[in-house]
Amino acid sequence: MRALTLLAMGACLIGLPAAAQPTSAGAPDAQVVEDLVAASRVLADLGVVDGFGHVSVRHDKDPNRYLMSRSMAPALVKAEDIVEFDLDSVAVDAKGRAVFLERFIHGEIYKARPDVKAVVHSHSPSVIPFGVSKVRLQPVYHMSSFLGVDVPVFEIRDVAGPASDLLVRNAGLGADLAKVLSDKTVVLMRGHGSVTVGTSIPQVVFRAYYAEMNARLQSEAMRLGEVTYLTAEEAAAAAKTNDGQVMRPWELWKRKAMKPE
Amino acid sequence: MRALTLLAMGACLIGLPAAAQPTSAGAPDAQVVEDLVAASRVLADLGVVDGFGHVSVRHDKDPNRYLMSRSMAPALVKAEDIVEFDLDSVAVDAKGRAVFLERFIHGEIYKARPDVKAVVHSHSPSVIPFGVSKVRLQPVYHMSSFLGVDVPVFEIRDVAGPASDLLVRNAGLGADLAKVLSDKTVVLMRGHGSVTVGTSIPQVVFRAYYAEMNARLQSEAMRLGEVTYLTAEEAAAAAKTNDGQVMRPWELWKRKAMKPE
Amino acid sequence: MRALTLLAMGACLIGLPAAAQPTSAGAPDAQVVEDLVAASRVLADLGVVDGFGHVSVRHDKDPNRYLMSRSMAPALVKAEDIVEFDLDSVAVDAKGRAVFLERFIHGEIYKARPDVKAVVHSHSPSVIPFGVSKVRLQPVYHMSSFLGVDVPVFEIRDVAGPASDLLVRNAGLGADLAKVLSDKTVVLMRGHGSVTVGTSIPQVVFRAYYAEMNARLQSEAMRLGEVTYLTAEEAAAAAKTNDGQVMRPWELWKRKAMKPE
Amino acid sequence: MRALTLLAMGACLIGLPAAAQPTSAGAPDAQVVEDLVAASRVLADLGVVDGFGHVSVRHDKDPNRYLMSRSMAPALVKAEDIVEFDLDSVAVDAKGRAVFLERFIHGEIYKARPDVKAVVHSHSPSVIPFGVSKVRLQPVYHMSSFLGVDVPVFEIRDVAGPASDLLVRNAGLGADLAKVLSDKTVVLMRGHGSVTVGTSIPQVVFRAYYAEMNARLQSEAMRLGEVTYLTAEEAAAAAKTNDGQVMRPWELWKRKAMKPE
Repeated sequence: MRALTLLAMGACLIGLPAAAQPTSAGAPDAQVVEDLVAASRVLADLGVVDGFGHVSVRHDKDPNRYLMSRSMAPALVKAEDIVEFDLDSVAVDAKGRAVFLERFIHGEIYKARPDVKAVVHSHSPSVIPFGVSKVRLQPVYHMSSFLGVDVPVFEIRDVAGPASDLLVRNAGLGADLAKVLSDKTVVLMRGHGSVTVGTSIPQVVFRAYYAEMNARLQSEAMRLGEVTYLTAEEAAAAAKTNDGQVMRPWELWKRKAMKPE
Repeated sequence: MRALTLLAMGACLIGLPAAAQPTSAGAPDAQVVEDLVAASRVLADLGVVDGFGHVSVRHDKDPNRYLMSRSMAPALVKAEDIVEFDLDSVAVDAKGRAVFLERFIHGEIYKARPDVKAVVHSHSPSVIPFGVSKVRLQPVYHMSSFLGVDVPVFEIRDVAGPASDLLVRNAGLGADLAKVLSDKTVVLMRGHGSVTVGTSIPQVVFRAYYAEMNARLQSEAMRLGEVTYLTAEEAAAAAKTNDGQVMRPWELWKRKAMKPE
Repeated sequence: MRALTLLAMGACLIGLPAAAQPTSAGAPDAQVVEDLVAASRVLADLGVVDGFGHVSVRHDKDPNRYLMSRSMAPALVKAEDIVEFDLDSVAVDAKGRAVFLERFIHGEIYKARPDVKAVVHSHSPSVIPFGVSKVRLQPVYHMSSFLGVDVPVFEIRDVAGPASDLLVRNAGLGADLAKVLSDKTVVLMRGHGSVTVGTSIPQVVFRAYYAEMNARLQSEAMRLGEVTYLTAEEAAAAAKTNDGQVMRPWELWKRKAMKPE
Repeated sequence: MRALTLLAMGACLIGLPAAAQPTSAGAPDAQVVEDLVAASRVLADLGVVDGFGHVSVRHDKDPNRYLMSRSMAPALVKAEDIVEFDLDSVAVDAKGRAVFLERFIHGEIYKARPDVKAVVHSHSPSVIPFGVSKVRLQPVYHMSSFLGVDVPVFEIRDVAGPASDLLVRNAGLGADLAKVLSDKTVVLMRGHGSVTVGTSIPQVVFRAYYAEMNARLQSEAMRLGEVTYLTAEEAAAAAKTNDGQVMRPWELWKRKAMKPE
């Protein structure tokens, strides 16, 4: 059935002139590819992704293209697994390899948010409970200040009805998700996971990790009683400071993740 | 006393013509054995099993035989430790080595469920609390959608009385457990652990892992307040999608688990 | 000040004829020493002990002697660190090396419980909360059935007053602890840790590990609501069965812990 | 903006004669540097610090100088990364390398507390919830007895207003923090982390680790109901005993952390 859906979708895209096989924006900078590979492995090392989840980066040569691995476990990604996509999430040349069903998360966010340069989708465990409860995820410490005080939740039932498989498996659902994300840094997906966006690979990895940490710490703090969260002003100030610090953990994480086996 | 019980059981089986020393269905496919060995180690790596727990697969040459390691810690299993059993859980030739006391879990489920090709029994930690409480295990996210909305609990006291050692140590108890499992994917065992079934080794490992994850996440979510679980329709749709994705984590897990020491 | 205390204690012991420098019972069996070394490292690997905690075994040649490492982190213990003690916890010949302040836990239990062949003292983390609360530790699954339904708590304030350092630092306190342990397998120590006893090294390690697991799982289960614990009869039956299974995890744990670095 | 702030701060310091480029107290003892490097890595190994957090030691040749790494992830620190600072937290010679924004935590505590020889600042996870709730961190077991019964919380809003980035980024805030720390061993920082002080590197690492452990265990214990904490007298006695034991875990931790990669 999935094959049929993909076929139907492909046919549909082929039907529209703009969605014909996209052309390449050319080879991305080697550093971008290296960082994308590293990000995949770092996210696995940090427990943000397991066999599932994906990270992408906007193409450095063309804002209308993005780069993401073929469909595979993030911990195993190498440079040759990186595929180029247009913003409709059509692969330039996947060389016959399977691509992620949910690549539309990435393409539609890049369309809606020109400021976004990198996107992580994960099922990071501590965040899941916040997506299925009425409790709002809020920053308990400066490390997660990028969350701000208003993390939205995407309820796919609102747009896909009561019997979906919960996946953002087409452009329409991707656009719906991007709308709920709005101008924020993180959007939770009910019964599924979350998406984190950033202006660089190191920053989006930082954010995906500390969103997970915040969820864990907020749960613990709530059990102790009333919690003092960061104010909107504190969150904004701390997020600005942290943006100047993302390379410190990134160097550490990258070094660990890229160690020869 | 256990030795006596086994002797009595052996005598009993020998008394019935059908239970005489079973003949072999022949050598299983090498890939099946390789995957069974890998599954043992993967489940240990993932924390689903520790020194205890076991995984089996139905013989690819004969639906009336199954394969499982001799009695040993799953993390140490090698191809030469695999033993062939008939569905009464009598070993074809154990070569004098001890076999699992609870092999009847596997044999009786293979009898009752022709669709089942692989079985995992574990004491995976986050699932235990759900077996001893009144709270029903339910899918909080799409990864555990295979649980459906009706995970049964096997209360051994109902069939073995108030003073059993909790083990499914004979065919009768195995059949009782299989009855409670019914057509589901997972059955919890009060004060003991759980059993997961599947149509392949990669799928049953996937399910055993995400049953554990779901238990952990559901506990966390419940502490935040009211929880939105997957509906039966969402669970069915997501389970179908996931069945097409089980090789992705399997390749990752297998690769890690089978690394040379 | 500790040096002075030790000196005072030594002087005191020397003052009593029975406590003169004890003679050796001779070299213990090599396997006993090997298992004691392995147990130290296994307990560290399993997170039952950290830099603190200790395991001992009764001497195989003389029930009035026991073996334990000098004062050091369990993960680093080697055969040459093992010291022989009499049941007053006086070292036969410590070769000038420091011995554990709390060795009296071991000596006094060996005196009071002729059935006990091995003792573990730890601060294993999940057990600590049960020692400081009114909730009784009870077996939630068959793996921890050895706990029985009546795990005692040693409140050192009852015997050492309100200003002790909580350590069982002399024979009197050791005897008090042994009295509270009575004929059980585990005794919790309020604000400190716990002691587990067994009839062999593999069994006592098994018990120390699953006491920790039970505490973790019981805490989780209690948060879900009413808990069905093992009955006394189930616990007794399951404990008997498990006693025949302790070598299975032991072989696994030992193999991992003794891997060359 | 951070660059501007640093520039302004530098300019300000240069404006005061006493804050001119400080002179070196000479090379510190090699053991001090080795222990400082080890402490950085040990704290990372123990999960007390991640990509962030720092440890310092007072200079062994001059109480008016302290040593700390340049701004970097603690797990990667080597001897050549150690920088000397005066108590105004001006580097003697950073060789153009970035230094920690929050070095004032260290300098101001060394000024206010002549007894303190080593300082750890971390965001250790279990401690964070206690900093944002009304529940007081209290010792549940002897290992964390150094906490005493009165762990203070620094609310930066009280001194930096409602829109700070929560960092102790200047001498004034450092002095404010030192005032709240007073004569205690640990001070929590609301929405940020904590600071631990000690009379030696092994002791401060011990304290930072067991403060984290206590937070985790206290949270668990509180969920079981009423908790019996150490009395002030017990805490004082146990802390004195533990001070004689800090080398035992230190040797273990150092050995693990300094293993060649």
